[in-house]
Amino acid sequence: MVSKFGVNTLLTLLISSVLIVVSVRYEPDWKSLDSRPLPSWYDEAKIGIFIHWGVFSVPSFGSEWFWYRWKTSKEAGIVDFMNKNYRPGFTYADFAPKFTTEFYNADEWANIFKASGARYIVLVTKHHEGFTNWPSNYSWNWNSMDVGPKRDLVGELATAIKSKTDLHLGLYHSLLEWFNPLYMADKASGFKTQDFVKSKTMPELYELVNTYKPDVIWSDGDWETTDVYWNATEFLAWLYNDSPVKDTVCVNDRWGKNIRCKHGGFLNCNDKYNPGKLQKKKWENAMTIDRYSWGYRRNARLADYLTLHDLLSEIVSTVSCGGNILINIGPTHDGMIVPIFQERLRQLGDWLNVNGESIYGSKPWTHQNDTITKNIWYTSQKSSDSLDVYAILLSWPEGKVLTLGAPLPSTTTVVSMLGYSTKLNWKPGTKGGIDISVPIIPSNQLPCTDAWVLKIEGLKN
Amino acid sequence: MVSKFGVNTLLTLLISSVLIVVSVRYEPDWKSLDSRPLPSWYDEAKIGIFIHWGVFSVPSFGSEWFWYRWKTSKEAGIVDFMNKNYRPGFTYADFAPKFTTEFYNADEWANIFKASGARYIVLVTKHHEGFTNWPSNYSWNWNSMDVGPKRDLVGELATAIKSKTDLHLGLYHSLLEWFNPLYMADKASGFKTQDFVKSKTMPELYELVNTYKPDVIWSDGDWETTDVYWNATEFLAWLYNDSPVKDTVCVNDRWGKNIRCKHGGFLNCNDKYNPGKLQKKKWENAMTIDRYSWGYRRNARLADYLTLHDLLSEIVSTVSCGGNILINIGPTHDGMIVPIFQERLRQLGDWLNVNGESIYGSKPWTHQNDTITKNIWYTSQKSSDSLDVYAILLSWPEGKVLTLGAPLPSTTTVVSMLGYSTKLNWKPGTKGGIDISVPIIPSNQLPCTDAWVLKIEGLKN
Amino acid sequence: MVSKFGVNTLLTLLISSVLIVVSVRYEPDWKSLDSRPLPSWYDEAKIGIFIHWGVFSVPSFGSEWFWYRWKTSKEAGIVDFMNKNYRPGFTYADFAPKFTTEFYNADEWANIFKASGARYIVLVTKHHEGFTNWPSNYSWNWNSMDVGPKRDLVGELATAIKSKTDLHLGLYHSLLEWFNPLYMADKASGFKTQDFVKSKTMPELYELVNTYKPDVIWSDGDWETTDVYWNATEFLAWLYNDSPVKDTVCVNDRWGKNIRCKHGGFLNCNDKYNPGKLQKKKWENAMTIDRYSWGYRRNARLADYLTLHDLLSEIVSTVSCGGNILINIGPTHDGMIVPIFQERLRQLGDWLNVNGESIYGSKPWTHQNDTITKNIWYTSQKSSDSLDVYAILLSWPEGKVLTLGAPLPSTTTVVSMLGYSTKLNWKPGTKGGIDISVPIIPSNQLPCTDAWVLKIEGLKN
Amino acid sequence: MVSKFGVNTLLTLLISSVLIVVSVRYEPDWKSLDSRPLPSWYDEAKIGIFIHWGVFSVPSFGSEWFWYRWKTSKEAGIVDFMNKNYRPGFTYADFAPKFTTEFYNADEWANIFKASGARYIVLVTKHHEGFTNWPSNYSWNWNSMDVGPKRDLVGELATAIKSKTDLHLGLYHSLLEWFNPLYMADKASGFKTQDFVKSKTMPELYELVNTYKPDVIWSDGDWETTDVYWNATEFLAWLYNDSPVKDTVCVNDRWGKNIRCKHGGFLNCNDKYNPGKLQKKKWENAMTIDRYSWGYRRNARLADYLTLHDLLSEIVSTVSCGGNILINIGPTHDGMIVPIFQERLRQLGDWLNVNGESIYGSKPWTHQNDTITKNIWYTSQKSSDSLDVYAILLSWPEGKVLTLGAPLPSTTTVVSMLGYSTKLNWKPGTKGGIDISVPIIPSNQLPCTDAWVLKIEGLKN
Repeated sequence: MVSKFGVNTLLTLLISSVLIVVSVRYEPDWKSLDSRPLPSWYDEAKIGIFIHWGVFSVPSFGSEWFWYRWKTSKEAGIVDFMNKNYRPGFTYADFAPKFTTEFYNADEWANIFKASGARYIVLVTKHHEGFTNWPSNYSWNWNSMDVGPKRDLVGELATAIKSKTDLHLGLYHSLLEWFNPLYMADKASGFKTQDFVKSKTMPELYELVNTYKPDVIWSDGDWETTDVYWNATEFLAWLYNDSPVKDTVCVNDRWGKNIRCKHGGFLNCNDKYNPGKLQKKKWENAMTIDRYSWGYRRNARLADYLTLHDLLSEIVSTVSCGGNILINIGPTHDGMIVPIFQERLRQLGDWLNVNGESIYGSKPWTHQNDTITKNIWYTSQKSSDSLDVYAILLSWPEGKVLTLGAPLPSTTTVVSMLGYSTKLNWKPGTKGGIDISVPIIPSNQLPCTDAWVLKIEGLKN
Repeated sequence: MVSKFGVNTLLTLLISSVLIVVSVRYEPDWKSLDSRPLPSWYDEAKIGIFIHWGVFSVPSFGSEWFWYRWKTSKEAGIVDFMNKNYRPGFTYADFAPKFTTEFYNADEWANIFKASGARYIVLVTKHHEGFTNWPSNYSWNWNSMDVGPKRDLVGELATAIKSKTDLHLGLYHSLLEWFNPLYMADKASGFKTQDFVKSKTMPELYELVNTYKPDVIWSDGDWETTDVYWNATEFLAWLYNDSPVKDTVCVNDRWGKNIRCKHGGFLNCNDKYNPGKLQKKKWENAMTIDRYSWGYRRNARLADYLTLHDLLSEIVSTVSCGGNILINIGPTHDGMIVPIFQERLRQLGDWLNVNGESIYGSKPWTHQNDTITKNIWYTSQKSSDSLDVYAILLSWPEGKVLTLGAPLPSTTTVVSMLGYSTKLNWKPGTKGGIDISVPIIPSNQLPCTDAWVLKIEGLKN
Repeated sequence: MVSKFGVNTLLTLLISSVLIVVSVRYEPDWKSLDSRPLPSWYDEAKIGIFIHWGVFSVPSFGSEWFWYRWKTSKEAGIVDFMNKNYRPGFTYADFAPKFTTEFYNADEWANIFKASGARYIVLVTKHHEGFTNWPSNYSWNWNSMDVGPKRDLVGELATAIKSKTDLHLGLYHSLLEWFNPLYMADKASGFKTQDFVKSKTMPELYELVNTYKPDVIWSDGDWETTDVYWNATEFLAWLYNDSPVKDTVCVNDRWGKNIRCKHGGFLNCNDKYNPGKLQKKKWENAMTIDRYSWGYRRNARLADYLTLHDLLSEIVSTVSCGGNILINIGPTHDGMIVPIFQERLRQLGDWLNVNGESIYGSKPWTHQNDTITKNIWYTSQKSSDSLDVYAILLSWPEGKVLTLGAPLPSTTTVVSMLGYSTKLNWKPGTKGGIDISVPIIPSNQLPCTDAWVLKIEGLKN
Repeated sequence: MVSKFGVNTLLTLLISSVLIVVSVRYEPDWKSLDSRPLPSWYDEAKIGIFIHWGVFSVPSFGSEWFWYRWKTSKEAGIVDFMNKNYRPGFTYADFAPKFTTEFYNADEWANIFKASGARYIVLVTKHHEGFTNWPSNYSWNWNSMDVGPKRDLVGELATAIKSKTDLHLGLYHSLLEWFNPLYMADKASGFKTQDFVKSKTMPELYELVNTYKPDVIWSDGDWETTDVYWNATEFLAWLYNDSPVKDTVCVNDRWGKNIRCKHGGFLNCNDKYNPGKLQKKKWENAMTIDRYSWGYRRNARLADYLTLHDLLSEIVSTVSCGGNILINIGPTHDGMIVPIFQERLRQLGDWLNVNGESIYGSKPWTHQNDTITKNIWYTSQKSSDSLDVYAILLSWPEGKVLTLGAPLPSTTTVVSMLGYSTKLNWKPGTKGGIDISVPIIPSNQLPCTDAWVLKIEGLKN
């Protein structure tokens, strides 16, 4: 029995604790910001699609760094391309009216992303060129409504993703703009002035968050100066405390050259970061299907694209070590995701349809690689009362028996291959571990290609 | 005799007064600013050339208000022009890459302006479209270096004017920008916010003055709100006190809807302002050779252009009433001043070669028009010991005698026609005034066409 | 009395003679063709307008020989212009889509031509570039309907001229086409093959005549080979015998390098041919208002255009010696006749309004120039019972008396100035000829500017 | 020993027989032309690549019939596309300057084709649009040198194919040109006139053959009229008798609406002709990887492309029935074969690397399909002393035993799978035929995907 007094006291305590939870506010410093738990959807999602699209999709040559490589690095290949194909005096801004996007259909894009098995997307809203893919109030005549597309590219995809799929929407945003004179002036001052941040970066970021309510803010272009110049902690404190997405939003780590790979939400560190071993903090491997560019290259060759096997290797090694993977594709200036990208994404979707349980919501296991056999990556999944371990094979075993050193079988251990109904025979390995009989599966019953997943239940704890 | 003490005292006083002069500083209020004497060169110059050039020179249709008439007024003629000649979705900014200026030769322009007899020019540096004809740090990708010309259009003309001629350089600058989202936001706030002024207008004006050191700042685009929003008095106080052109610069009156036609330097009041009678404050008649547009119109017809006679009528009536005239021409998108403009300017130059003494440095006379004969305008010129009066005839007298009511001849009165060596006979008018024998001049000895100037010396005071 | 038989005989004779007249047919040889009398309208018309328009109006630089000067002569100025303003690999044919003609209004053109006082026009239907300004069946994808204008430029003007004015329609046609591979192959064969003529030139000429029924065929591009290659006499025999314009059509002389200045209809000889003395055969001076080009040049300067005085000098000296004058203007790529051309044409129209009787329908007089006073050209006009002589003065006489040596006055001689009502005093010259008192005309009563016409009636035969 | 007389006689006989061979000449009639044996290389080659490239690659929308569907069929989708994306009055010819081909590298194309396993290519030199991809002397300003590419597209590929590969070069050529006025006039005459054929088609065909020396002339555009109009037999007689490729050239059957599927070289009949059973005359299945278009479509989706399995089905069913297959890809306006095409071609090449012996040089077998098991196609190959039969399985057998009804095994029969070293067990079928044990092959030893070939040696004759 509980006295009235007791009940009241309990209620009071309960209410207080609720109030305490509600009233948690983050301070604009990294210690406080880093204390915020990453919303759980992000780690569970594992796989995202990155989309690089902008004025650079018009020359569609070299890479999305076209402008910089042309005007600053003065790379011969780029300079030569301009000399051969454009009139003298053609400026980068002259490309913008050719950014036509006539085939852009955000619903179709959403379908493609959904079919790939990805659980979130990250769209470039503005790259280092400064062109905003939405009608920003802070980028007059250098945005997708005033020049070229005459459309809100970001808004259309945001709507499609939210209304047609259950994917999470992420937005990429570059802090710096190579050639913005306000930025160049701040830089010339040794970043003592902050005119650019105040009149461009910050207003834009608030505008993006308030308008499109993204679940990821993927920051970039931070490397030339510190988070102090970028006003990073103030923005993040607002984002975590007061923004419309405060409960769901995740951010990365590119908020200043002193910050990346240390603070923020998940860590991107460098491009195509894939450390190959377990990390303490949540991280993400942002990588590309076109090996040489994030933006679409009209003259890319087949060999420049990752094969499905290449892609699965990246995914599996990333997820096994606790990372998410952000797979980049580059749409064309006319708004298409070309078939080769569709093919890779659909192949991936087919693979995940069979093998998704080893990926989505998985946790790194004790081991990432096997101790005996190479080219195997582990993940694990909490089952009702135990832990299921997944051994992901990036090549089909050579012999009749696959020897794994890391899993220690118990008497109740069951081994199966995802997508294949017959259980696999096994026996304890001679030196510990487990010897699994490689099944000889008729070719028409193979569950998938390029990588196969063994599910091992009932291991010794 | 003056004691040393006295001399010192005098010197002290003198130095003090000099210091006082030197230390005259204007306050950022109209009373103080209006107290500044207009630099004398301006009134003496009388005739300027106005140059409207910008992205509107690309469609070159309708007028320099093309964008506004297309998108805001939605004028049928403009909308129809776009529908017929451009792809759907073509934006105004898409015109900018076609602003090629390949024939722009500032030295040639300077020669044309010089030959017209004008004493100053006023170049549009930025019209209401917001496109800056110089590489402004505050108009990224919407300026003549980043898009289209890839040249500093203002700088090239400034250099040519200053190095090749003795003309004064004036710069036109529009305060408002129709479609700048920062301006639109300020406007939506009832002009309570001032983001646009602080990040765009003011930085631009300082940049213009410091870079090109103009003798005229010709402000425009003020009409939607007050001088307070525009920061007008602060800017002018700096301009008069501390700018590199503080001793020579003149400004007009378009600094706020409450200001125009009241305060500032010279008064422009409305476009094509020509009050027809003497004004108390120095004013300027800004008018166009193309009756219907300030910007070049590709489809203008001959009848749309003022004839030399039309132009002289405007000039003479303006100068007689104390005004300056600012004659507008519109260059083409490829940088030419088309021959019809050259012809009018050269015809004007020929006329001024003969009749300039009645214009340059002249002062309004007691009378502006004659009391008896129509179509005659007076100016005057201080001679060594008297006042010379000029009667400017906009048509050749009908009969043999020209009767003027305003001039009262003395016995020493001499009448001549500028450009014609023989003195003209006269006798006192029957009812006061003067009867002048109209000379019958052989056709090949006519000094000029379209307007003729009688110089009357030795009038009664 | 005439017997019935006699009447019948007479009728028979009459009919026969009519039949004979009707049955005059020209043979395809020059002797026969040259025997055809030039239709009288042509000599009476005196003044025509020549219109050079084509793809060359797009670069609108250099001249209508742009392509040749670029690719064959490789003139530095042209090559440089292309290098600076176009992408490498830009071809001449790439200009064609930019031939937009959006402002082309044939009725307005007709009005301008009519107001100039011209009595015929000659429109370039195809220049040496080979682009046909009408939808020719023999110039696929290289004509104004398939590329660029998407209009029948020739047809629209033909209709306007015929329906809105009483001017005669003439059509210019170039035989050769610099870069047509069929022509080049024929040329390489030493003009032994005739593929080009058979599949291109001839079909086109028939098509032009049958479709637009012109009163002038103004041939050009003949100079590289003979009339035999060009099939000239066959075409002309058809034109004179069987074409729909056989009774009214006039042709020039450019039908082969052995023919020009010798055979054909009127003689053009070389461009701007103005021999300065009476010619035996009817001729025409084809000349330009822009001294340096027949096609429009965007970068022409005012000084490049003839003044009215220059133009009148050409006209008067031409007509006096029995020539017609064909005054060239070049419309723009967007279809305008720019105001400077309109101004010259209208000035000419004003002059002809006053002085036309000395020009239209006039005949050369015994003298072309005066024997004593320079700068005077004579024409004459059959009056009811005598000959009126016109002395056209290209400058106003210097003194009070104008002494003419050529006219021998009779007692009934009357001298007047066209456009001025008072007769002029005269007396016989001391050494023959006539001394005419130069009238002193009030400036506002001058009939015209730049040239004045004295009409002298009642001279001694 | 042979007497001198004998030697001479032998020589004489030899020379005579050579002369006889040499003197076989074909008459310009189908009976004679059809009597010519098809050069053997063609049947042995089996697989060709078809390349559709032209001005239609610029809009790259709908299909290579874009012009016709826009202007003649007036299909809503095409008309709408033009209305939305181009200015009014934009003509088809206006597309040509945008045919830029900047990435066209014929050596790379040759490599791609070679790697696909194809043995010949057929390049569109001119489609129904009439634009020639070579600098034809008969298509002025409507060819790839005068407009757009400014390159000899045909010549570059011809050189690459001949110098870098052992593939045979074929050239596609359309007889008709939808909108050529000469063709339209002939058509309007009921094809009584032949101006178009004489001045365009014939000269072009001779030019193509003499210049590029192709081994295939792939004619098209014949269907509106008969071979008589097209001058087909005359051309073919020349081609077979006197052309530089008389010994190697093959032609198809599209030489008149009365001819196709009856006469000529190999039969194409209709597009994508695949009769599914053995044909008497050599035929070819011309088909596309993009199901909906021969020309590249920028907005094609992945599902629009055949999968490798789809493609192999077509190939196998075609070859089994005696056909060749011509697999079409469409390059882009900028000269790329996009990766999805590269991927399919490379997948095909991989398959042919393993299974080529069942294809190249094969002959149809007695059976095309199996009498018991579906989805199996047979080919055969003469072996030294017997016939090897290939059963091509388009899906992996469902059970453990594959029962084939058509092959009748002998005691020496050997069954193997191409690319797999272990022989397959078999026993005679219960009702005749053969029962083959389906091998269970470890996944990493599978020789290929999508289709597998069983080689059966030593069958009963």
